[in-house]
Amino acid sequence: MHRRTSFSRPGPIRIRFITGMRALLTLIAALPGTTLAAQAASAFAEPGRVWTLQDIAAAPEIVDLSVSEDGRQAMYIIRHGDLDKNAKISSLHRVDLATGVDRELKSSTWLSKLQIIPGSTDWSVLADTGDGVQLYRVDGTGRFKAMLINRDLDQVGGAAEGRQAFGISDYGWSPDGKSCWYEKRTSQSPDTPTVNPLFLPLITTYGANPVELWVRSGDGEDALLDRIDAIAGGYFTVEWDDTSSSLTYWVRSQDRKSLEQRRWSRHGRKAEALSSESSFHVPVHDARGPRGGSLATTGFGGDRKLIETLKDGSVVEYGRAGFRLGDPRASGTWISPAGDVALLGTRYYDDTRYGLVRVMKSGAVEEVPVAGSLTNCSVNRAFTAGVCVRQSMISPPELVRLDPRKGGATSIVGLAPSYATIRPLRVAPRTWTNRNGYKANGYLVYPRDYEKGRKYPAILVTHGSDADQRFVDAGFQWDYPVQVWAERGYVVIAMNESAVSDSAELGAAYAQWGGAPGPLPMERVQDLIWINTVSSFEDAVKDLDKEGLVDASRVGIAGYSAGSQMVNVAMTRSKAFRAASSGDGGYLEPSGYFSNSASYRPVFGGSPYDPAAVPLYRRLSPTFRAAQAAGPVLQQVASGHASQLGFHVSLRDAGVPSELVYYPNESHLFHQPRNRLTAMQENIEWFDYWLLGKEDPDPAKIAQYERWREMREKWENGAKKAQVSK
Amino acid sequence: MHRRTSFSRPGPIRIRFITGMRALLTLIAALPGTTLAAQAASAFAEPGRVWTLQDIAAAPEIVDLSVSEDGRQAMYIIRHGDLDKNAKISSLHRVDLATGVDRELKSSTWLSKLQIIPGSTDWSVLADTGDGVQLYRVDGTGRFKAMLINRDLDQVGGAAEGRQAFGISDYGWSPDGKSCWYEKRTSQSPDTPTVNPLFLPLITTYGANPVELWVRSGDGEDALLDRIDAIAGGYFTVEWDDTSSSLTYWVRSQDRKSLEQRRWSRHGRKAEALSSESSFHVPVHDARGPRGGSLATTGFGGDRKLIETLKDGSVVEYGRAGFRLGDPRASGTWISPAGDVALLGTRYYDDTRYGLVRVMKSGAVEEVPVAGSLTNCSVNRAFTAGVCVRQSMISPPELVRLDPRKGGATSIVGLAPSYATIRPLRVAPRTWTNRNGYKANGYLVYPRDYEKGRKYPAILVTHGSDADQRFVDAGFQWDYPVQVWAERGYVVIAMNESAVSDSAELGAAYAQWGGAPGPLPMERVQDLIWINTVSSFEDAVKDLDKEGLVDASRVGIAGYSAGSQMVNVAMTRSKAFRAASSGDGGYLEPSGYFSNSASYRPVFGGSPYDPAAVPLYRRLSPTFRAAQAAGPVLQQVASGHASQLGFHVSLRDAGVPSELVYYPNESHLFHQPRNRLTAMQENIEWFDYWLLGKEDPDPAKIAQYERWREMREKWENGAKKAQVSK
Repeated sequence: MHRRTSFSRPGPIRIRFITGMRALLTLIAALPGTTLAAQAASAFAEPGRVWTLQDIAAAPEIVDLSVSEDGRQAMYIIRHGDLDKNAKISSLHRVDLATGVDRELKSSTWLSKLQIIPGSTDWSVLADTGDGVQLYRVDGTGRFKAMLINRDLDQVGGAAEGRQAFGISDYGWSPDGKSCWYEKRTSQSPDTPTVNPLFLPLITTYGANPVELWVRSGDGEDALLDRIDAIAGGYFTVEWDDTSSSLTYWVRSQDRKSLEQRRWSRHGRKAEALSSESSFHVPVHDARGPRGGSLATTGFGGDRKLIETLKDGSVVEYGRAGFRLGDPRASGTWISPAGDVALLGTRYYDDTRYGLVRVMKSGAVEEVPVAGSLTNCSVNRAFTAGVCVRQSMISPPELVRLDPRKGGATSIVGLAPSYATIRPLRVAPRTWTNRNGYKANGYLVYPRDYEKGRKYPAILVTHGSDADQRFVDAGFQWDYPVQVWAERGYVVIAMNESAVSDSAELGAAYAQWGGAPGPLPMERVQDLIWINTVSSFEDAVKDLDKEGLVDASRVGIAGYSAGSQMVNVAMTRSKAFRAASSGDGGYLEPSGYFSNSASYRPVFGGSPYDPAAVPLYRRLSPTFRAAQAAGPVLQQVASGHASQLGFHVSLRDAGVPSELVYYPNESHLFHQPRNRLTAMQENIEWFDYWLLGKEDPDPAKIAQYERWREMREKWENGAKKAQVSK
Repeated sequence: MHRRTSFSRPGPIRIRFITGMRALLTLIAALPGTTLAAQAASAFAEPGRVWTLQDIAAAPEIVDLSVSEDGRQAMYIIRHGDLDKNAKISSLHRVDLATGVDRELKSSTWLSKLQIIPGSTDWSVLADTGDGVQLYRVDGTGRFKAMLINRDLDQVGGAAEGRQAFGISDYGWSPDGKSCWYEKRTSQSPDTPTVNPLFLPLITTYGANPVELWVRSGDGEDALLDRIDAIAGGYFTVEWDDTSSSLTYWVRSQDRKSLEQRRWSRHGRKAEALSSESSFHVPVHDARGPRGGSLATTGFGGDRKLIETLKDGSVVEYGRAGFRLGDPRASGTWISPAGDVALLGTRYYDDTRYGLVRVMKSGAVEEVPVAGSLTNCSVNRAFTAGVCVRQSMISPPELVRLDPRKGGATSIVGLAPSYATIRPLRVAPRTWTNRNGYKANGYLVYPRDYEKGRKYPAILVTHGSDADQRFVDAGFQWDYPVQVWAERGYVVIAMNESAVSDSAELGAAYAQWGGAPGPLPMERVQDLIWINTVSSFEDAVKDLDKEGLVDASRVGIAGYSAGSQMVNVAMTRSKAFRAASSGDGGYLEPSGYFSNSASYRPVFGGSPYDPAAVPLYRRLSPTFRAAQAAGPVLQQVASGHASQLGFHVSLRDAGVPSELVYYPNESHLFHQPRNRLTAMQENIEWFDYWLLGKEDPDPAKIAQYERWREMREKWENGAKKAQVSK
């Protein structure tokens, strides 16, 4: 039978990763890695046009893809930035897999959660057709029929989305296709007081109101399972049992200290508690293996392997694995009806692609061979047909047909044809080993007209482990115009942090950061997670300078969210970078302690006003280290946290050039394409100014350069004074 | 000729006092004081009903009052909380001064800035009649005629008001009545990025968009004077010259470091800079004196006096003064056409009433004798007729007619008749002298059925200098139900801080706090402004316990804004108070430094992460002193600052009961009457629980008391452990 990881994360849930637990976000974005097959990503070399900022701001993202049970059709949702409407637009498409004919069925401000209805030829989808986001049935001709409508609309946004009116915001079919669970929004007066909020300012962008979990049964009856505070607690991993008669899910307590698994069954009618765990362990599905057990990747460094844990507790080893299972960006996992072949979505370690492997009862593990990544895969219940998106840093998404049994993948149709006219840049995967022996992988993006032997200015872009083989992924590059920088003559170093599984000690550090007990002193946790990563960055720049590719005196650094932590630490602990752009961050800054003390305590010991903790803050927290900053910092922010202002003012107090630009009504990943243009342009001008001394002659920019020149003068005078006083 | 202080402060301007410069707010609320004639405020003793929370939430405020040139009519605007509409409602009334007949002419969500049009029998007023707030002409029959309409509406709130659509938001007539200056709103996309904001989160409640200053001339022509950033900078004190041909105003620089005076004249057509000053000195009008000079109150402590500075620079003394001029809560100042009698709005020192004095060329200074306060006065140009509001803590506002020449005041009509049916509480003015010799004044509100010899629980309520003779003033009592506490058997100690003019050293401390250079060490500034005030509070409680009125073991403290600073300092430096309620504060808490460093530096020296400044924070800043807290703290907040969360989490970390309730979409002074009810009820329950051990049996409150009992247990266990470890 088919099985798919349904790690529930609609807009309202993602908040926990972004603002509630930046630590967790970074963790998820920085899980294991080793080598399998690094494929040089230098396809397509035909002549064509060059990259523009508009290309980046409008770049498409495949939201969902689903194959029909008969394997003849696929449906997908694609979302792209519409510069005229200054919004993201979703489209539902149907592809005839025999002919490759791709037809747009519907365009809307919101489409998501496309699922085949088990045992049916129809799909279901969340869509806004004018009444807020609701659940619809869609047949093969594209006809929409309302399935669940909740008129009690709630304004909900997300890390990457603006606010949208939601009635139904998530759902999942039982295996028999007769029932589905669903998440129903509730509204309450926006003026209702909040007692003991975890955040101030309150994060209402993501929908502050409680949600309800319901089950709609085949007889049309609705049962209320739970009412959950989506901001403080939230729920995860809703899973039907094989007989469609019960389901389980996890709920996080409002104080975020524990998770409780609950079960609802048709007979009991009410959800009941099964077990609870400390909150750090986010439960995920195990992948079912060809011997009836569950598959997992395990081990550290050179010992990372694929294992199957059988029901009797014994373990079968499938040998070393160059990939890891369970990455939320990878495809799901399936098993053939006979149970003899498991198909697993993977993330590789060295050339950080996403792919599929087939695991056979014989013990054979075979990769589905493609250039680039396979993502968004969908496999039918009979295990006879599947579809995936193939993409890489340089090749726009295309639909491929998959043979789950044999493992072949064949191109059907390109999903973003206008991007195929861009002449691909030269992109090369790289793995660096730093002075401490830790590996970090990523990509070099070469300047358009690269000449060997010439040293180029460079910008290192980082965001956890998101430097990977996806096409113009906003989750990695945010508002940093990677491709346009390459067009403008910069080397872009797209660089990840070390994978958590690189060493057992690094794994232990991440576990302690997450709240697990452990033996490492806090200094060591700081060293392993942040300071070691900065060493990787420094050493990569040194290597590239030595190779003659990069001019180490003209290197900048940019990263948002988890990346901004690294940028801010790098700027206040290292002299390797001359300028920085730090996007919507603030984690590690002292005022973050007060809404996230559980993840600050393992790093700093306590409050930034606790004398015992201060030396640990002084060691790592960028606000505490502002006077040691190596150069100018631009912060472009959407959340508008006190922590961002604190770092900015501290830099200014220390005479360090600092610019803070607040984008109101934006999401953590900007959803307004015009703001993305503005922010990317700002980044171009910022690094051109501080690395190359270049100014944009546009008269509209006069005030900006006056401001920057004044900052520069103050900074240089301060540096001179410091020189004299030595 | 007539002359009135037109200290410009519409909604959008008030922000500077509230959030931009809490220091300034406190300063304004804490200026000079001595004694003139303390009148025991124990009028009306007839039987009647008792106070309810609804009475407080609905209590009226006289917004504006204006007498006609012929002295036969007055118009006024009254604003009250409407519990059904959950909003404040403004009404425009006309009173026939001969008969006392009071007629309501219009009711609206917004009416303000009522002014007589010079040389006319009509008034002008800002009103929302359905097109946003615009400028109208009103005749004696109440007919409205549009004068200035700006369709580019901007959503603007204020410290005490919810958001309202404004087209025109302020204005002022030239003496000849032919021209007026006006403040025009502008709108811009709410998505426009802000470069280097002074605050994060941005304060948009008060209208974030620039405003324009215009002059409309008699010929209907409009001239643009200025375009001003109302949040960062703002402007003050717009003043026409006597010939109506030019006007001057002050603009604060965006970095808030300086003020510039600008003049516009009909001939120049463009405003030009006259002079600039450091930002602390907010310019106010001088009152014109009977010898052609300007009147001011000056001196400290026992030496406070009224002087007139003549044009040749010489000074005429009018002897000791028990009042001060220039208090923004007092009435304006006028001078007779012949220039021989000046009529001055005053604030008295000991019984902190507002009144009027007449200053004669002969040197005589005569008070207009009334019980309670005279506020909102208006005098005609001929100086033959005037009107005022008379009110006190126990007497609801009534309209009185004034004889400016002779000084008499006679009752015309009560403006809040439903409050006249409440049996007045016993209220007595008090002046306390603390251990350091500093005076502080205020009022005792006795429990309804006070029995001499019995000791009562007490709550000290404080807000700068706002404990005064006004009726149910929300600017003093905020959401603290002073009158209902008295009904419930509490003594309420309504207590002010020492007046700045109490001593030269105190004056110097305030000046240094404001940014002026001075000799006092920062510790002394902290001592004089905050720690000395806490000593006054402690000593007042001790005195009242000694007198047998108050049970010193059951005393709480409450205050909002400037008051919350004192509450938080009191709770973390003194053991005199067993529980506290701190309203929408945060000044002195460390994270406030980053949006208000100019007013933190004179107190702490620098950033809370600067090792040199830390000892000064540790000495005063409540977040740094959370572990020393004497007892439970409730914070009810509207602004939702990081500083409020920081204090809350620090108290909890220290095991001290702390409750933070965030009221979304509220203003600094709550404008939603139902939220005021909720917050007042919360305060009743909070102090009943922590001072008296009483719980409200309402089943809806079960979760609250479970939470509070858990806090109490943790707190008591912590105290026991501390005991054992000694």
